[in-house]
Amino acid sequence: MHRIAIDMDEVLADTAAHQLAWYERDFGPGPAAADLHGSHLSACVPREHRERVREHLHDPTFFRHIPLMPGAVDAVVALGARYEIFVASAAMEHPVSFTAKYEWLREYFPMIPPSRCVFCGDKSILDANYLIDDSPYQLVRFRGEPLIFTAAHNVHETRFRRVDSWHDVTALLLETP
Amino acid sequence: MHRIAIDMDEVLADTAAHQLAWYERDFGPGPAAADLHGSHLSACVPREHRERVREHLHDPTFFRHIPLMPGAVDAVVALGARYEIFVASAAMEHPVSFTAKYEWLREYFPMIPPSRCVFCGDKSILDANYLIDDSPYQLVRFRGEPLIFTAAHNVHETRFRRVDSWHDVTALLLETP
Repeated sequence: MHRIAIDMDEVLADTAAHQLAWYERDFGPGPAAADLHGSHLSACVPREHRERVREHLHDPTFFRHIPLMPGAVDAVVALGARYEIFVASAAMEHPVSFTAKYEWLREYFPMIPPSRCVFCGDKSILDANYLIDDSPYQLVRFRGEPLIFTAAHNVHETRFRRVDSWHDVTALLLETP
Repeated sequence: MHRIAIDMDEVLADTAAHQLAWYERDFGPGPAAADLHGSHLSACVPREHRERVREHLHDPTFFRHIPLMPGAVDAVVALGARYEIFVASAAMEHPVSFTAKYEWLREYFPMIPPSRCVFCGDKSILDANYLIDDSPYQLVRFRGEPLIFTAAHNVHETRFRRVDSWHDVTALLLETP
């Protein structure tokens, strides 16, 4: 059975939307969607807010309440009939987030067994056929077939096969024979 | 460069010794070494203590203060000159332990970058040439060459090439051309 490794932030979880909602609650209107193209939020806010935006990612509760990416649950269920599904999150960037990320996964994706949840900082360690990720840093080192999941920060990236949504993922990986 | 994945409990960390020391402090003399052969501690203590022994592994502080396995640090430094070293711990069995395990690794093995610390429950996901582990469950599913690190509970296991100590590991992986 072929195996798919799936990233968490900005792929299963709509981390960017959650971060922007937090920002707008505390600071007022954030950057427009078009201004975020090619960048992360911290690079698009006034200079005096940047440190706060980066620090917020170290708040362990931040990761516990991120909304789902639209279509993610149904797609994972459908893909699970034909592939082995692993979730692979680079949680090492924010070590305080391990438990919150794990609890989030157990709540929203109970069909993925704990044994198939992976925290790793360098996804070249994954032995999988596909990696669905928003991070060019991870995709370029992965040894299988990389699929870039569209996020505002990666729209200019051209090195990888692109999927814009979970609908695109299932079309690509389930509708081919 | 070839890559070695190394387990944490009972391989880099002398988890069994730490667990026995805790047991003897609270309950008095534990089982003799020979009685542990082929078993885990929880199976070798009086029936009324078993649940307490298993529960203790869910105490998040347990993993923070485990002593090093003799020779582990020097061996990891020496191996690092010739191999890419990843640490791979099945922390998903005890999710409360993520942060304590990560902090332990950073304290005792600062030469291993955070990006090469992996938490995963099923080590078939690791793309590495060797896996050094005490767990037959993990070794049998690993896709590279498995090396079983001797622990009391695995002494009767015969399916894998065996290393009894970190000296054995370096002799095997560094002294061959």
